[in-house]
Amino acid sequence: MMTRARPYLLTRSVVPENQESPIWFLHRLRFVPERYVFRRNHFPYPLRLPDRLTVRGLVSFPLSLSLAELKAMPAKTITAVLECAGNQRAKFSPPPFGEQWEGGALSQGAWTGVPLREVLARAGVRPGAAEVVFVGADEGLRPDMDGVFSYVRSLPLAKALHPDTMIAYAYNGAPLSLQRGYPLRLIVPGWYGMASVKWLAHIIVTDHPFTGPFQSIDYMYYPHPDRDDGKRPVTTIRVNSLIQFPLDRSIHRRGPLKVEGIAWTGRGVITRVEVSLDGGRTWREAKVSRDDHEPYAWVHWQWEWNADRPGDYEILVRATDSAGRTQPPHPLWNRKGYGYHAISRVRVQIT
Amino acid sequence: MMTRARPYLLTRSVVPENQESPIWFLHRLRFVPERYVFRRNHFPYPLRLPDRLTVRGLVSFPLSLSLAELKAMPAKTITAVLECAGNQRAKFSPPPFGEQWEGGALSQGAWTGVPLREVLARAGVRPGAAEVVFVGADEGLRPDMDGVFSYVRSLPLAKALHPDTMIAYAYNGAPLSLQRGYPLRLIVPGWYGMASVKWLAHIIVTDHPFTGPFQSIDYMYYPHPDRDDGKRPVTTIRVNSLIQFPLDRSIHRRGPLKVEGIAWTGRGVITRVEVSLDGGRTWREAKVSRDDHEPYAWVHWQWEWNADRPGDYEILVRATDSAGRTQPPHPLWNRKGYGYHAISRVRVQIT
Repeated sequence: MMTRARPYLLTRSVVPENQESPIWFLHRLRFVPERYVFRRNHFPYPLRLPDRLTVRGLVSFPLSLSLAELKAMPAKTITAVLECAGNQRAKFSPPPFGEQWEGGALSQGAWTGVPLREVLARAGVRPGAAEVVFVGADEGLRPDMDGVFSYVRSLPLAKALHPDTMIAYAYNGAPLSLQRGYPLRLIVPGWYGMASVKWLAHIIVTDHPFTGPFQSIDYMYYPHPDRDDGKRPVTTIRVNSLIQFPLDRSIHRRGPLKVEGIAWTGRGVITRVEVSLDGGRTWREAKVSRDDHEPYAWVHWQWEWNADRPGDYEILVRATDSAGRTQPPHPLWNRKGYGYHAISRVRVQIT
Repeated sequence: MMTRARPYLLTRSVVPENQESPIWFLHRLRFVPERYVFRRNHFPYPLRLPDRLTVRGLVSFPLSLSLAELKAMPAKTITAVLECAGNQRAKFSPPPFGEQWEGGALSQGAWTGVPLREVLARAGVRPGAAEVVFVGADEGLRPDMDGVFSYVRSLPLAKALHPDTMIAYAYNGAPLSLQRGYPLRLIVPGWYGMASVKWLAHIIVTDHPFTGPFQSIDYMYYPHPDRDDGKRPVTTIRVNSLIQFPLDRSIHRRGPLKVEGIAWTGRGVITRVEVSLDGGRTWREAKVSRDDHEPYAWVHWQWEWNADRPGDYEILVRATDSAGRTQPPHPLWNRKGYGYHAISRVRVQIT
């Protein structure tokens, strides 16, 4: 009989499919296997997948590209963290409405595709272009508005032309699965996942800001519980960390305990990971192992704790990046619950 | 391409394997399929499974029974809820240490086996017997004590002789899987799951109370955070309910909303399920559908809510059983976090 247990995706909803990665159990992994990548959808899976990708709007040469044509262009592979903007939403107090992600709306893998700017160069972006709009093939209802909507997002032109923003057709060396956005999806390394439109059908270059609901209603930080002023768009991934071991509220026999996890950022690279056992008064530096050529990848960190005295402890972990950003002691609450990146905490009991 | 999403077990730990049932997504089910039954283990899966079940101690005729011999005895099938005593532990405030079960350490299915009392009758229980001890084939370390332990539990003689306490060899009509306790396990309908010893190897009739750590340290209600006085054993399942729909913190378009879920009890049957939208000041009765001949099974309930006014709401649900027990407004906190059965609550936003 098979005795090997394995973790599963953590189901938040079935239609649309929203499932967390069992990230706590994927130790020292660089490429999260396809089956363990989180799934975050606004709508049911599209019934008709796009067979061509069109590029139009403010371009000199509108395009219609097949998967084969894109694969014939020079390819690029980037290992990048993908994190849902709502990751850890359940940890805000009070928790905002929406999917109650605990921490596994987060994955990492190798994306292969064509830099978007190569495609835009072929199309010839015309003067006056300000944004690039990306239309996914998924559509459906929103809980807060009447009508049928597609999933549509835009990028400022500068971000669209960034050499690492790509149209991806492979994940970890294999064609995208349906769940990953087959046949083509956008990948915007360093930005939260909402930017990386799946089942990419149309690219439209425009001269004005796009204001669809996934751009101007969702994925905005609203600092106030009941007013919209002060809102600003969710973009770059904040500096963050995850404690994979020990698990929260777990019980351990006294002795050496290896505290470990990952840390990541959307801006620059992780420069430091620190651990505190006294509520943040003093910090000790964890050992960080990184892959130097992977700026968008997470780093692994570990810290050897000689847990020889029984008692209840809280382990705090904070990461710092080369942009000088550090995880704050308290979450920056916002009405829709995006960008949680407060200091990571687990409580453990040593017996 | 496959577009059908399905829920998965919700992983709490891999070794030993502890995974919740995705119970929120199993609507109107009477028999939870094998793959969706929660897994709660104290130790890794046993490497050697028992090939015979021995019955000894205060008996006139010690027995050694094979699976085939047990299957040749008159069989009985009972549909019963199985709930881990620590289910919903994560909802206590503060959450006790241990597996952070949210609500899916709960399943239901049809168990087939031989009433334990038939086996005890064959062995001939001798005068002076007080308890029956059940030894599982799983063993390993405890976080709080030195040494290697087997999973061992006892039942008072009266409960062991109850006609529904059984040695089971099938679940939903199929042989037990390894995870369910193959080849034989105890099933104690109406008691929390810790009593239903898996991989049952030995049955020992004794004249004194058994005091192994899974009997006298774990599975006791400790009412005080730092003293052991007042402790009493965890036994019967408390009256309880689960709201399966809507999900906590979910967002819904205004209009009719079917609130639904399950309710169960270890004593008598569920007689009433009520819903409140005003914090428990007033209650309305939900529609309960039951299977009359299944006293240990959960009932399904539903309540049609005309959610026509936008706003944030809290839905409260409480069940009452024929023993006169009702879910209390606040959880009965205890140090190890057993028996959570406070009124069920979800918050929803109507837009």
